[in-house]
Amino acid sequence: MELSHIEHLGIAVKSLETAIPYYEEKLGLKCYAVEEVKDQKVKTAFFKVGQTKIELLESTDPEGPIGKFIEKKGEGIHHVAFAVKDGVQNALNVLSDKGVQLIDKAPRKGAEGLNIAFLHPKSTVGVLTELCENPNEK
Amino acid sequence: MELSHIEHLGIAVKSLETAIPYYEEKLGLKCYAVEEVKDQKVKTAFFKVGQTKIELLESTDPEGPIGKFIEKKGEGIHHVAFAVKDGVQNALNVLSDKGVQLIDKAPRKGAEGLNIAFLHPKSTVGVLTELCENPNEK
Repeated sequence: MELSHIEHLGIAVKSLETAIPYYEEKLGLKCYAVEEVKDQKVKTAFFKVGQTKIELLESTDPEGPIGKFIEKKGEGIHHVAFAVKDGVQNALNVLSDKGVQLIDKAPRKGAEGLNIAFLHPKSTVGVLTELCENPNEK
Repeated sequence: MELSHIEHLGIAVKSLETAIPYYEEKLGLKCYAVEEVKDQKVKTAFFKVGQTKIELLESTDPEGPIGKFIEKKGEGIHHVAFAVKDGVQNALNVLSDKGVQLIDKAPRKGAEGLNIAFLHPKSTVGVLTELCENPNEK
């Protein structure tokens, strides 16, 4: 397993309508996509800075993962996603063998059509960690 | 002002001794430096993944910023640092003119000799945000 770069940073926000203008008008980044991920009960907005995307996450349901996160911790960085070079399933196998606890035992589809899987923060020194690969870049 | 990439991600951990082996043995990254930043009351450990560094932060004082963060929120991602293309002071001027609240009104020295400054999370939709430049790469 090899991590190539930080694919994106997931940031929980209360409102995309408030957050997008901050990233565009203050930081000078461009929102290039807004997408709903029903599975995760979120609306997402994407920006790019260098190799890394910033993925803003607004909850569409207070009982969804982002709704609960904001209730408990407030707005802020929710997770980091690493791009893996040799496939998410391979990475999950390697990490599981090394005793890392997984949230997803097999890859599933995330935003932008990526194959994604989450590791459990109990095993990752407190950081909710996602692995991903773009199936079109294999 | 232009952000070029995410220079580093600051992650608060209780113990470098516990956290470094996770990043090295599980994720396969290499710790290339450990440095104490007395000003910030932290010991830091650095890894690199793509363009971005991961900076683990262990508090050397419970009253320091990382000690207080962990007490309040637990271990996790503490801040994001963007590299700016045209100087930190210029970026601070531009952002201040746009109404962004600053923690540092002028750049100061951070880990690895970078010029750094923090924006206030009240102005950044909940994300403690650092701007930095490497004075040797100008």
